[in-house]
Amino acid sequence: MLRIVLPKGSLERQTLDLFEAADLAVTRSSDVDYRGAINDPRVDEVRILRPQEIPVYVAEGMFDLGVTGRDWIEETGAEVVSLGELQYSKVSAQPVRIVVAINRESSVERVEDLPQGVRVSTEYVALTRRFFEKKGIDADIRLSYGATEAKVPEIADCIVELTETGRALRAAGLKIIDSILTSHTELIANPIAYDDAAKRHAMAQLHTLLAGVLEARGRVLLKLNVSDEAFERVIALVPSMKSPTISKLFGSDGGYAVETVVPKETINVLIPMLKDAGATDLIELPIAKIVH
Amino acid sequence: MLRIVLPKGSLERQTLDLFEAADLAVTRSSDVDYRGAINDPRVDEVRILRPQEIPVYVAEGMFDLGVTGRDWIEETGAEVVSLGELQYSKVSAQPVRIVVAINRESSVERVEDLPQGVRVSTEYVALTRRFFEKKGIDADIRLSYGATEAKVPEIADCIVELTETGRALRAAGLKIIDSILTSHTELIANPIAYDDAAKRHAMAQLHTLLAGVLEARGRVLLKLNVSDEAFERVIALVPSMKSPTISKLFGSDGGYAVETVVPKETINVLIPMLKDAGATDLIELPIAKIVH
Amino acid sequence: MLRIVLPKGSLERQTLDLFEAADLAVTRSSDVDYRGAINDPRVDEVRILRPQEIPVYVAEGMFDLGVTGRDWIEETGAEVVSLGELQYSKVSAQPVRIVVAINRESSVERVEDLPQGVRVSTEYVALTRRFFEKKGIDADIRLSYGATEAKVPEIADCIVELTETGRALRAAGLKIIDSILTSHTELIANPIAYDDAAKRHAMAQLHTLLAGVLEARGRVLLKLNVSDEAFERVIALVPSMKSPTISKLFGSDGGYAVETVVPKETINVLIPMLKDAGATDLIELPIAKIVH
Amino acid sequence: MLRIVLPKGSLERQTLDLFEAADLAVTRSSDVDYRGAINDPRVDEVRILRPQEIPVYVAEGMFDLGVTGRDWIEETGAEVVSLGELQYSKVSAQPVRIVVAINRESSVERVEDLPQGVRVSTEYVALTRRFFEKKGIDADIRLSYGATEAKVPEIADCIVELTETGRALRAAGLKIIDSILTSHTELIANPIAYDDAAKRHAMAQLHTLLAGVLEARGRVLLKLNVSDEAFERVIALVPSMKSPTISKLFGSDGGYAVETVVPKETINVLIPMLKDAGATDLIELPIAKIVH
Amino acid sequence: MLRIVLPKGSLERQTLDLFEAADLAVTRSSDVDYRGAINDPRVDEVRILRPQEIPVYVAEGMFDLGVTGRDWIEETGAEVVSLGELQYSKVSAQPVRIVVAINRESSVERVEDLPQGVRVSTEYVALTRRFFEKKGIDADIRLSYGATEAKVPEIADCIVELTETGRALRAAGLKIIDSILTSHTELIANPIAYDDAAKRHAMAQLHTLLAGVLEARGRVLLKLNVSDEAFERVIALVPSMKSPTISKLFGSDGGYAVETVVPKETINVLIPMLKDAGATDLIELPIAKIVH
Amino acid sequence: MLRIVLPKGSLERQTLDLFEAADLAVTRSSDVDYRGAINDPRVDEVRILRPQEIPVYVAEGMFDLGVTGRDWIEETGAEVVSLGELQYSKVSAQPVRIVVAINRESSVERVEDLPQGVRVSTEYVALTRRFFEKKGIDADIRLSYGATEAKVPEIADCIVELTETGRALRAAGLKIIDSILTSHTELIANPIAYDDAAKRHAMAQLHTLLAGVLEARGRVLLKLNVSDEAFERVIALVPSMKSPTISKLFGSDGGYAVETVVPKETINVLIPMLKDAGATDLIELPIAKIVH
Repeated sequence: MLRIVLPKGSLERQTLDLFEAADLAVTRSSDVDYRGAINDPRVDEVRILRPQEIPVYVAEGMFDLGVTGRDWIEETGAEVVSLGELQYSKVSAQPVRIVVAINRESSVERVEDLPQGVRVSTEYVALTRRFFEKKGIDADIRLSYGATEAKVPEIADCIVELTETGRALRAAGLKIIDSILTSHTELIANPIAYDDAAKRHAMAQLHTLLAGVLEARGRVLLKLNVSDEAFERVIALVPSMKSPTISKLFGSDGGYAVETVVPKETINVLIPMLKDAGATDLIELPIAKIVH
Repeated sequence: MLRIVLPKGSLERQTLDLFEAADLAVTRSSDVDYRGAINDPRVDEVRILRPQEIPVYVAEGMFDLGVTGRDWIEETGAEVVSLGELQYSKVSAQPVRIVVAINRESSVERVEDLPQGVRVSTEYVALTRRFFEKKGIDADIRLSYGATEAKVPEIADCIVELTETGRALRAAGLKIIDSILTSHTELIANPIAYDDAAKRHAMAQLHTLLAGVLEARGRVLLKLNVSDEAFERVIALVPSMKSPTISKLFGSDGGYAVETVVPKETINVLIPMLKDAGATDLIELPIAKIVH
Repeated sequence: MLRIVLPKGSLERQTLDLFEAADLAVTRSSDVDYRGAINDPRVDEVRILRPQEIPVYVAEGMFDLGVTGRDWIEETGAEVVSLGELQYSKVSAQPVRIVVAINRESSVERVEDLPQGVRVSTEYVALTRRFFEKKGIDADIRLSYGATEAKVPEIADCIVELTETGRALRAAGLKIIDSILTSHTELIANPIAYDDAAKRHAMAQLHTLLAGVLEARGRVLLKLNVSDEAFERVIALVPSMKSPTISKLFGSDGGYAVETVVPKETINVLIPMLKDAGATDLIELPIAKIVH
Repeated sequence: MLRIVLPKGSLERQTLDLFEAADLAVTRSSDVDYRGAINDPRVDEVRILRPQEIPVYVAEGMFDLGVTGRDWIEETGAEVVSLGELQYSKVSAQPVRIVVAINRESSVERVEDLPQGVRVSTEYVALTRRFFEKKGIDADIRLSYGATEAKVPEIADCIVELTETGRALRAAGLKIIDSILTSHTELIANPIAYDDAAKRHAMAQLHTLLAGVLEARGRVLLKLNVSDEAFERVIALVPSMKSPTISKLFGSDGGYAVETVVPKETINVLIPMLKDAGATDLIELPIAKIVH
Repeated sequence: MLRIVLPKGSLERQTLDLFEAADLAVTRSSDVDYRGAINDPRVDEVRILRPQEIPVYVAEGMFDLGVTGRDWIEETGAEVVSLGELQYSKVSAQPVRIVVAINRESSVERVEDLPQGVRVSTEYVALTRRFFEKKGIDADIRLSYGATEAKVPEIADCIVELTETGRALRAAGLKIIDSILTSHTELIANPIAYDDAAKRHAMAQLHTLLAGVLEARGRVLLKLNVSDEAFERVIALVPSMKSPTISKLFGSDGGYAVETVVPKETINVLIPMLKDAGATDLIELPIAKIVH
Repeated sequence: MLRIVLPKGSLERQTLDLFEAADLAVTRSSDVDYRGAINDPRVDEVRILRPQEIPVYVAEGMFDLGVTGRDWIEETGAEVVSLGELQYSKVSAQPVRIVVAINRESSVERVEDLPQGVRVSTEYVALTRRFFEKKGIDADIRLSYGATEAKVPEIADCIVELTETGRALRAAGLKIIDSILTSHTELIANPIAYDDAAKRHAMAQLHTLLAGVLEARGRVLLKLNVSDEAFERVIALVPSMKSPTISKLFGSDGGYAVETVVPKETINVLIPMLKDAGATDLIELPIAKIVH
């Protein structure tokens, strides 16, 4: 029913891993094939194409659903519906930003102080043009095919470039003077397809599966035993999505078995606290998917 | 008690991974060692040898239990007991077939139309001889040491070869005109050992562990909460090996905790249905082994 | 609060993997960085340095807590508190030993029979000196920078060297005639920091998390169903950390759901026994952490 | 004196190898650095940038001399002087062509038969526009960011794409219906710099060194001895750049030593002919550079 | 004119390298293609097939010329003409032998002492049969598909196997008790084709080119200057294929320039001797091909 | 006759390559073997050991000849004879230095300004002690097992460390304030062996071969033709080790063939000059060895 387009290149591996973990594995005849398939009644067709082109293809209706970066949605100005971010990794995920950078030695500290006619090199020509127009600066903007940071100062005075940690920019002797956009990977839909109730329902179900995997990556299932005596102390420490599952332990010793979902990032603190409060036999299990 | 022989070569990695996952890890002094050991009271000795030779060694009683392909069981005509298939992967597993292939440009479409004296190249000389005899064709059959598909049409008119997807055959300009055998990896036993009650019991236990891992690869454990009100609707959707495990949730909100084993291939459809029916806090856990 | 030092080199990968699995991931700007950080309120600073130097740094109070080998604790004679061993792997873990080895062809079979003035090459000069003094042998001990086993017989008569399987020694034509020390990776603390109640509590909590991961590596969670009739037989076979978690199965068939933690190494025997005793629907789940 | 720009990406390795072989090695602080240097009095500065941008930078005078492909010279329409082709490899070098390709199943066989409004995907927007205008076809031309061949037929009806062997196009189910341009790597100069006599002399000298290496790759130095009697027969077979170097052999046997440069591709035929004609002691030496 | 067959597998890389060095480069559409071409008027067709099958194909006239090992020529008993050995490497080349090996612990030291009915595992069934018949031993010979050395003593009593250094046999606990054949790579021809004068001439020319490369691998061109005074002493030390090339040095100092081809393996001794004898300005040049 | 010791580790690859190029190839049973052999009448035995230990072994007479770094000769204070430097690479070879480095932020700029009791970490304990004693500073010097640069400022105030480009030091936030030693790879001899005339002659011959390869790496053989008319102009530009080899060209055109050895680093300037002066048919040949 749905035609889906996924991004080729730097996002490809993570996107395909996510779909597989969501039991929506994309099969291809080879790793470099641009056509794929998902064995799912809601999916008709899968294509893997450049993220730069995906917003336009989704907006024009060639595909119903796509995955791409916010940077290219803004650059193309394509009219699409965003179903939400796909935050592939809670741990390493720094926000990716499109920034304005110039020579570290320059005395300029703000975009507003750049001269008229400033030479700007960028892969985001439209975004950059709108940004400089709003600032009232008449910039000489040129499409960069890559190696953008290497062009300052001889070939360009200033660049507009994607950066995660800023390390490549610093290594090239540049400093960031402004930030145009923070970009995430997003799940986007064609507006007309989105208005179709059946398609929207299918999209929401796929989104649920994908989001379920992403949420599970940050959580574990914690199981523990606790005596009658320590029960209240321990239960007060237990977080849960809704409420913990509790059952009486078998045998004459009494006590309870408690089970709950816990964010990974708090577990290094929580487990010692639970143990201090009287919990025993704590075990932690990996989770594949969580759906609320 | 049991002497076991496992296949060297293309099946080696998967077979050893399966035994390890079944808590029957084969230890060797190095990756190229032909002798191994399993730390298990039921296993005396492990050898890793060519799959072509395994059926004969098991039939002759050099080993009690072996893993090899159906193709070589048929080719050798060895008298062994098959305990069942070991389907290493539910996802990618296309049946492997032994097929008859000829030049794509040939006008022949059926084996019956091949000429007397047809030159056939194959690694399966005995199987091929029986096949052509049954068809009434007097073929000039030659043992191939590899690269079989490259011999048509100059060196052979026709080949009998193993294929999974048929891609290598197509790439060599061939077309498939008949299929002789569908082959799986199998667990085989020596008939005399199999008649020994103690050995047969040990074999069945090992088979249970191996099959338990293979089944678990295709399933997950699904846990969910459900309110009293939605209970019947949700429970009607829940599949289970036997019946779901259900317990009352602790606390004043009421509701139930439900736990059940679900095939992975249905989960992309099932989870959205359960959620639509009122299930909450669904979590999916990976399973290492399932034994009925 | 705690300053931690971890070992660079052969123990590095496993140590960092253990800390990550314990939800104490060490982040570094690159894989070769000597400075790291753990996002945890109990940890102020992390450094990755040579295991040889770690005992002294911990003893002198540059760090509160460290991971290193028993060999270097003994060699340096550093005064540190050992919080316990970190046995990274139950499966492959042979004890690592510091041994005395000589030419295989030599007629000497005991250290006591080595001649006065024997030339000894070793990375463990202090350990070796103490050992030979105790044996009453006046040895000519020299610091080896590596390739120690290659020096016998031309450059040294005897070596004192670390070995796991003895394979490298055998390959060099040597035989082991004595063993000086069995070495494990240990978690060590500065004595003054250890006397500080708050720091000691923090150390114990970190130790709990690390040990919880190590224990989980050798165990699985086993879940099974059992009928009323078979209940006693099955439950008698079930091991548990404390006691199994048991609940009544929903529905008219009756029976129980049983859940228990089991050592991996016994499961190849236990599962068939449980099944023979009447257990059904056995499933085995991987565990990420166990805390008693 | 000269500022030089070299291509980053697929041509980078071969270009840098050529410069090194020409004793004009480009040194960089790392393999991903965009700035380099050549230790040569004629070269002031070296930059490594995208080949797409090089023609414009050379035309605008940011650099005096550059290496890039004819395809991007044409696409950008930049006004540069071409000093000649740099044919990196005589052996494998098929001409690289920019072609028009469509679905193999289409009945269209000529560009002229494509419909008005045909959707064209390409990295060469300007070249493609000029080509279709000349053909009188009003095409809907879109910039492709890659994977161009995967867009037919759903996303584009036709593509304009670089190809060497046509294999990728065939694998994507396309057929070539026209060829727009044959492209080679070229050495290009800024017109104003080229008009400066000193700079033009320096450019010619560098060109001489580069061309000398390229020519040497296809040739060897052949040395042979020949008796007085066979001299005329052999010498008639000897090709040479100018004339062979000949000297009398020392000693009473008489005869001559002959030395000449020979194209590699003819040597498999020439050596047996020379030997048949009476040449002896033939030896073949590799050549690093040839300058006429 | 000639149809050529080259060996796939362990000899493939070296054989193709040799043909390329001989200016007879084999071009293929990919590295795994079984069809190739040589751009040479004497060569019609090139196929790359298993060395085991090559002798029969050449004997039956499917190919005129082939490269394979002496072992398979003997095993198949194919009637072919051998044009000579191709000794790929003078340095590392130990003779490859087909040997008889048994358990190191066995008391048997000669083939003659093996018992009747001895179980023999081998890839060379025919060779082995002839060998044991000649020895008067009635052996139970079985085709081995590989891992032959791992079969002693449980599955076979004795093996007949190819070995270069004997290391794999020793590592498997075996000892060599006899040698059946010493095997080299050979250039072989079909007898009928070889009787055709034109084809035989073409074969000889190809053989000349191949042998020229092999010989050059072991030699260098040595050039030196020598004064009139030292001339006789130096020239007496100079080896040559025929006679050294000598010319008078230009200028008033007098002296001679001497040039000669020298085996690499003697040069470490020769150069110091020449220098001691008065030679100066010695330079050594690599040679690509030598034809006598 | 000579026992030779070569360095294991970072110098190993280059040292073995040099010996092979000098026709003194070291053969070993495997790449990690510490024993080797050279097929040369002057060499009895070859060992590959740590460079740190080599000076002492050579001084004590365990070996006659060794290759190691000047740094370890100085650190050990071993009494050896240096036969000369082995400059493995003319191109990249920056001198390797042992330097004193401190925190970049420190106000100290000279060693003399370091405080008494300064904590110094180094692999060169003896060298460092002598250096600081001479400066009159009472330093607390500790043996570093590696990662020395990571110890400033917490664990050490100052380090003494080997550096080539200084990049690792800068990256660790350090600055160099003094240089203790410039180190090269050297060929060293035992003094007693060196006093033996036969051994000294053998050492000199090996040295000649090794130096001959190193010199050849920086030179090429240049051959050119020149007319009678241009002869004087061209010959005036020609450099040579001794004098160029010149011979009359055969045929009626007259002219000369000139041959000479030229440093690689000047050839980019020389060839264009020669061509401008009238030289034609210039060819450049690689040289394997040069001996004066």
